[in-house]
Amino acid sequence: MSRRATYGLGVRAEQIAERFPVVTSDSGALDAVRLMAERRLPGLVVTDQSGQPLTILRSWQVVGLLVPAYVQDDPSLAGVLSEPTADRVAEKLGGKTVGQVLPKSLPHMPTVNADDTILEVAAVMAREHSPLVAVMSDKQLIGVIAASRLVEAALMGR
Amino acid sequence: MSRRATYGLGVRAEQIAERFPVVTSDSGALDAVRLMAERRLPGLVVTDQSGQPLTILRSWQVVGLLVPAYVQDDPSLAGVLSEPTADRVAEKLGGKTVGQVLPKSLPHMPTVNADDTILEVAAVMAREHSPLVAVMSDKQLIGVIAASRLVEAALMGR
Repeated sequence: MSRRATYGLGVRAEQIAERFPVVTSDSGALDAVRLMAERRLPGLVVTDQSGQPLTILRSWQVVGLLVPAYVQDDPSLAGVLSEPTADRVAEKLGGKTVGQVLPKSLPHMPTVNADDTILEVAAVMAREHSPLVAVMSDKQLIGVIAASRLVEAALMGR
Repeated sequence: MSRRATYGLGVRAEQIAERFPVVTSDSGALDAVRLMAERRLPGLVVTDQSGQPLTILRSWQVVGLLVPAYVQDDPSLAGVLSEPTADRVAEKLGGKTVGQVLPKSLPHMPTVNADDTILEVAAVMAREHSPLVAVMSDKQLIGVIAASRLVEAALMGR
């Protein structure tokens, strides 16, 4: 086996994958959204109860969960909602699970293999327009790589 | 003027806009990319020399700057590059300015007005698929709102 570079785009995905908070489809939707905010995450990795990843919600998709469909279609409508009504919109997640609020068509989940180089990971991120990829080994989720972490490893050697 | 809510989706954009590191088109490309990594930013706001925002690069677009076009088109090619070659790819930004490496067709920049409610901001983020929006007042950039910041303000009252 060749000696692996300790930084640069030849580093393997498993070397920089981070344990990232994941939420399950049974988690409370409001808790999941709060988790993203508290940790300033670029998105949420959603797994089923057995830990198999189902999807990755980008942060703008999580924000979209707060917004009624008719306002997403026409943001100018948001301006005419009175403030109490607007506040109440946040309540739409209360009492629901993540599974209940996921988009009907699940966003495609970018995955890479543990031994892919981070150049491969970078290519997947760029192609899938995703700030996060799930790192898999033997069909198990072993971690997540965020875009900023990838750049750090590629350019700064840590 | 009505009393403004201190949290909830009726908060105004200017109340939660953050001073966010911006880069100019004259900044070094490598420095700009490192800035995103060091601060774990969801993207980079690029302005011209006068401070007028030009575009927002999402983190996956910044990652794309590290990847040769032929690898983006076919990520499997990344696996066949030898590691020293892959490392050298990172050098493609060295000595260049941000302006020189920006995509030819600048990504559309989502902007909101200082007095838009964060429900309006959320709608723009969701519609534009952007983790960041630029907040403008009198045609000046006064700050940036990240998706995680918006969720924090909407749900957690801070």
